[in-house]
Amino acid sequence: MIRAGIVGGTGYTGVELLRLLLPHPEVELVVITSRAEAGQRVDAHFPNLRGICDLHYTSPSASVLADLDVVFFATPHGVAMDSVPELLANNVRVIDLGADFRLTDADIFAQWYGMPHRAPEALSEACYGLPEYYRENVAKARLVANPGCYPTAVILGFAPLLKAGLLNTDGLIADCKSGVSGAGRTGRVNLILPEAADSVSAYGVSGHRHRPEIEAILSEISHTPIELQFTPHLMPMIRGIHATLYGRLAQPCSDEVLQALFKDHYAHEPFVDVLPFGGHPATRSVRGANVCRIAVHQPRPGQIVVLSVIDNLVKGAAGQAVQNMNRMFALPENLGLTQIALLP
Amino acid sequence: MIRAGIVGGTGYTGVELLRLLLPHPEVELVVITSRAEAGQRVDAHFPNLRGICDLHYTSPSASVLADLDVVFFATPHGVAMDSVPELLANNVRVIDLGADFRLTDADIFAQWYGMPHRAPEALSEACYGLPEYYRENVAKARLVANPGCYPTAVILGFAPLLKAGLLNTDGLIADCKSGVSGAGRTGRVNLILPEAADSVSAYGVSGHRHRPEIEAILSEISHTPIELQFTPHLMPMIRGIHATLYGRLAQPCSDEVLQALFKDHYAHEPFVDVLPFGGHPATRSVRGANVCRIAVHQPRPGQIVVLSVIDNLVKGAAGQAVQNMNRMFALPENLGLTQIALLP
Amino acid sequence: MIRAGIVGGTGYTGVELLRLLLPHPEVELVVITSRAEAGQRVDAHFPNLRGICDLHYTSPSASVLADLDVVFFATPHGVAMDSVPELLANNVRVIDLGADFRLTDADIFAQWYGMPHRAPEALSEACYGLPEYYRENVAKARLVANPGCYPTAVILGFAPLLKAGLLNTDGLIADCKSGVSGAGRTGRVNLILPEAADSVSAYGVSGHRHRPEIEAILSEISHTPIELQFTPHLMPMIRGIHATLYGRLAQPCSDEVLQALFKDHYAHEPFVDVLPFGGHPATRSVRGANVCRIAVHQPRPGQIVVLSVIDNLVKGAAGQAVQNMNRMFALPENLGLTQIALLP
Amino acid sequence: MIRAGIVGGTGYTGVELLRLLLPHPEVELVVITSRAEAGQRVDAHFPNLRGICDLHYTSPSASVLADLDVVFFATPHGVAMDSVPELLANNVRVIDLGADFRLTDADIFAQWYGMPHRAPEALSEACYGLPEYYRENVAKARLVANPGCYPTAVILGFAPLLKAGLLNTDGLIADCKSGVSGAGRTGRVNLILPEAADSVSAYGVSGHRHRPEIEAILSEISHTPIELQFTPHLMPMIRGIHATLYGRLAQPCSDEVLQALFKDHYAHEPFVDVLPFGGHPATRSVRGANVCRIAVHQPRPGQIVVLSVIDNLVKGAAGQAVQNMNRMFALPENLGLTQIALLP
Repeated sequence: MIRAGIVGGTGYTGVELLRLLLPHPEVELVVITSRAEAGQRVDAHFPNLRGICDLHYTSPSASVLADLDVVFFATPHGVAMDSVPELLANNVRVIDLGADFRLTDADIFAQWYGMPHRAPEALSEACYGLPEYYRENVAKARLVANPGCYPTAVILGFAPLLKAGLLNTDGLIADCKSGVSGAGRTGRVNLILPEAADSVSAYGVSGHRHRPEIEAILSEISHTPIELQFTPHLMPMIRGIHATLYGRLAQPCSDEVLQALFKDHYAHEPFVDVLPFGGHPATRSVRGANVCRIAVHQPRPGQIVVLSVIDNLVKGAAGQAVQNMNRMFALPENLGLTQIALLP
Repeated sequence: MIRAGIVGGTGYTGVELLRLLLPHPEVELVVITSRAEAGQRVDAHFPNLRGICDLHYTSPSASVLADLDVVFFATPHGVAMDSVPELLANNVRVIDLGADFRLTDADIFAQWYGMPHRAPEALSEACYGLPEYYRENVAKARLVANPGCYPTAVILGFAPLLKAGLLNTDGLIADCKSGVSGAGRTGRVNLILPEAADSVSAYGVSGHRHRPEIEAILSEISHTPIELQFTPHLMPMIRGIHATLYGRLAQPCSDEVLQALFKDHYAHEPFVDVLPFGGHPATRSVRGANVCRIAVHQPRPGQIVVLSVIDNLVKGAAGQAVQNMNRMFALPENLGLTQIALLP
Repeated sequence: MIRAGIVGGTGYTGVELLRLLLPHPEVELVVITSRAEAGQRVDAHFPNLRGICDLHYTSPSASVLADLDVVFFATPHGVAMDSVPELLANNVRVIDLGADFRLTDADIFAQWYGMPHRAPEALSEACYGLPEYYRENVAKARLVANPGCYPTAVILGFAPLLKAGLLNTDGLIADCKSGVSGAGRTGRVNLILPEAADSVSAYGVSGHRHRPEIEAILSEISHTPIELQFTPHLMPMIRGIHATLYGRLAQPCSDEVLQALFKDHYAHEPFVDVLPFGGHPATRSVRGANVCRIAVHQPRPGQIVVLSVIDNLVKGAAGQAVQNMNRMFALPENLGLTQIALLP
Repeated sequence: MIRAGIVGGTGYTGVELLRLLLPHPEVELVVITSRAEAGQRVDAHFPNLRGICDLHYTSPSASVLADLDVVFFATPHGVAMDSVPELLANNVRVIDLGADFRLTDADIFAQWYGMPHRAPEALSEACYGLPEYYRENVAKARLVANPGCYPTAVILGFAPLLKAGLLNTDGLIADCKSGVSGAGRTGRVNLILPEAADSVSAYGVSGHRHRPEIEAILSEISHTPIELQFTPHLMPMIRGIHATLYGRLAQPCSDEVLQALFKDHYAHEPFVDVLPFGGHPATRSVRGANVCRIAVHQPRPGQIVVLSVIDNLVKGAAGQAVQNMNRMFALPENLGLTQIALLP
């Protein structure tokens, strides 16, 4: 049994980790921390766990964490970096669901996150935890940077085309729509239901932290410098990301060839589902499931539209983290991750 | 392995049965019927099942169904009654998620459902499938009438008090709030999002088919004639029932005694969770889970308010049906039913 | 022109007052205050007002307010009471949308609101601003306590029966459902969309501040001591209150007589609409309009169910406040209040 | 007084026309037709109109309509074309909210709408009713083709840049998000709340009828052939369109110049509101109001993102129709159209 801990267990990625780890057949969840809620029952905060989780929140303790096999950080950026070096030194594996280790360049991190990186040596060994493209590295990693929710949806949709060199790298656009849970479990006025329901708006159009992450990884995967316009929108829904991706073919390509490219590319992936050509995946088809569903369109010759949907809290966060853990501990990658999406 | 079939698999109770039966370790789902969609892939209708379900809808065939161990009817009332006698004659067990066998009195059935009962002899052997109160009968039953969604929430909330004789039987009220999926997967104008979202309204205040069902079962359980006012409301949400139940104590009773009554009553029930006294269960705490959560209040001496929440498609339909199947086939009652509610 | 001011203009009752007062033909809105946002443009907070409102928030100033004809307090309880005596002394009329002057008994106020009343002499002259029952008093009042949203819906539904002495005063129940805007424009975690959407829960079942207000006014109107069980629920919607009211007839009464009672009672009311007997008003039918729609049911002889819906921010707050202002300044009661509900 | 009629008054554009025309100071609404509902009270279908509208639906009658000053068609495509020639011959002005007269080329109409155009001579005199660009023509028109909802939002956002020749005409993208009311008041399964709520999906990615309309009008306005990729998405909300528009500058241009272009372009428009540069308009800021709010971004040099929001039923349908009517009858363009958006 893998002895696991969660640091920062009161947010949405925290409760989603609990939903996936508590019934996981190879995991014993030993500790879940929260400074603010130390001493409180976890199921008092998350009543869906009543009868399933008997844990109490504790204050984070270095010695307790050092005794574990793996620690998940479900914390805002700037938290994990202060604990990770010591954990690694104690041979504890780390999966950070926050942003501290996603950007391998410490300067770019500082620029986008407004703070210097305080663990640059750990940063240099971190592995980006998108198993579809970094599977072998994840298997050997001590420290996995779990991808952001938007990057997961965007990269899985763009990468097959970019890897194959089929797209012009000019003019790439990722128009993304996210449920409100992507903003975290935090009492901000703009997130309360009377503000966020029955309305749509964009945010961060001029620059969002997930853009450099997407650009860096797509550049690495395609061995080409990639820039794109990334436009996130807040949707009046709880969960789900819908990425609508635009690009132009570098050379003519039939619909059949495009479809075959995606089908072949993801043929052996347990968690990427390529729909028939011209399909329209809905975010609800992945609600609660560790799946990315993708469909490809060519509305006019040369104009490509890729639709990519995930549950931001599962394949975009906690589910992917468990997938990475399975890989790090040489378990079947889908162990404990076979939940079927809740529809309706 | 139990060889199972579903009749009428294009509605919400149908897809929910699929979600629960496909991964069930003791069930082989052999057939799922739909006259209208015969020949179509099931996962073309329910894309959450892509990669999980390889079945096609078929037209209902008596000979195919007669070869199964159990048939679930996920059909409107008036369908199951025409097939059940022959299935029973072939030693096929039946769980009807529709209303055909819930009211044991054929005249009352005719009065509320506007049609004569065409299988009165089957009706007389049907067992009401609320395991918490009819567990022994379910175990022996060949035909189980799966309870309505509202009745499940209302009966589980009222029964402990009525069985104990603690309530005046005058003036009982069940004010119930349901998500729109309770109305079925049907294209009615009043159910489309622009009509049903961001609004609340009552319906059927002067009489609803679930009232005689609730009254009959509560009368049977309490050995007393029970009448109540049942008021259903349509909520702008997908799933969930919240029953707010009102009654007055027949004799003074402390909060502690009331709480102990509920705790003891449901102490060994796998799927009924009694909250601390004065709690406020939210429907989202049971979303996707086969659980009923209950809390008791005594705002003023003698005034009782019981809050009872379920997912109408799980404990109120498909989950309870699987619970009944487990019982009928002598399996652990919670087998395949341990999904954790999806929160948020 | 009435020179008007709003104290506390950053919440939902504030913006709703702006929507109604800015185009009001007899009102000049002179000042709107907010300590926190002083100096900011109002339309930067409420972009629906762009092009319509050129005001900036100011810090509340006693001398500025003293120069007005009327001041609306759109503040939490405990604020208005500190300014009202001085305003009255300066012959400024006051309409308090908060709770400071709704409960005429200072001790009961202190008990429910957790603070002593600091303006008891003003309290004794305050008029409860429900025009349907206190119209003459409102016309003469210097200080109007605008009713709470729940009390408005509940009192308008129960009062005709209670005034006529038709109901048993035992066992009255008000089961109420409110949109989230009723909780105010405040960043509380339980109000953010991922917590409040797609779910229903009750709150304050054991006691809510609107209960003593409802009981006091219904007692006064009916000249009988009234107690009731009041159960508020949070609905996944923005606006709207649906009150489902239960009582039992003190003597048999035909449906026709009941209906005639309501129709006659409200025949000359501009803002109360009695539906045909047995109707089911939806909250969306009053969205944005200063209307209360009511329907009466008698599901079984003697069992009465009254359904009453309002927009909590209009007839339950800002619209009623403007109705009171019209009355206080001898204007037609419906001036500036003829907006048609937004449907869908 | 303008004597007006509505043909097809049971859908969402119909009820929205009623909301705007009933209180319009220069309009007498004489007749509203519906074959299916002939004889029924209008307010029985739309209870928001109780107390405001005393009309009954009638069957469409050529002689009754011929006696009016103006007829609004709120019908599906293919209906208006059969009546318009006769109405014009009787000197009745026509505003068609459907699609029959939006595409001036009858062949393109036939290709996208699957039917031949049956009134080509009327088509040739029809005026596209986007007042911001066709104001003078509207004033003289006998027949106005009211723009589609998506085209209104997209054209108002793109036109200033295209007219000024500032954009590359290659690679234009309109990624649009619409509330469900855009699909009409029709009982389709995919529109019911349990299907459409809490989910996002694209549709018609490979081709949608609004694309040729947008392309034709933008080509005409800019005197250049324009093609674009148009991607509509269904949002879990009632009303609102959010158009996210992408293009690349043909030549470098500062943010200040861009902003000034938009500000100047729409400086005298009563219903187009240009936000400060880099703003993020929300659809709720225009809910119920005849306004288009626009913001411009240049996230990287040369990359333009324009955000444009409207209420699909107001500026995208009924409000724009009334604006056109005002213009056709030489009334102030904003008469009866000053409703403030409902927020929250």
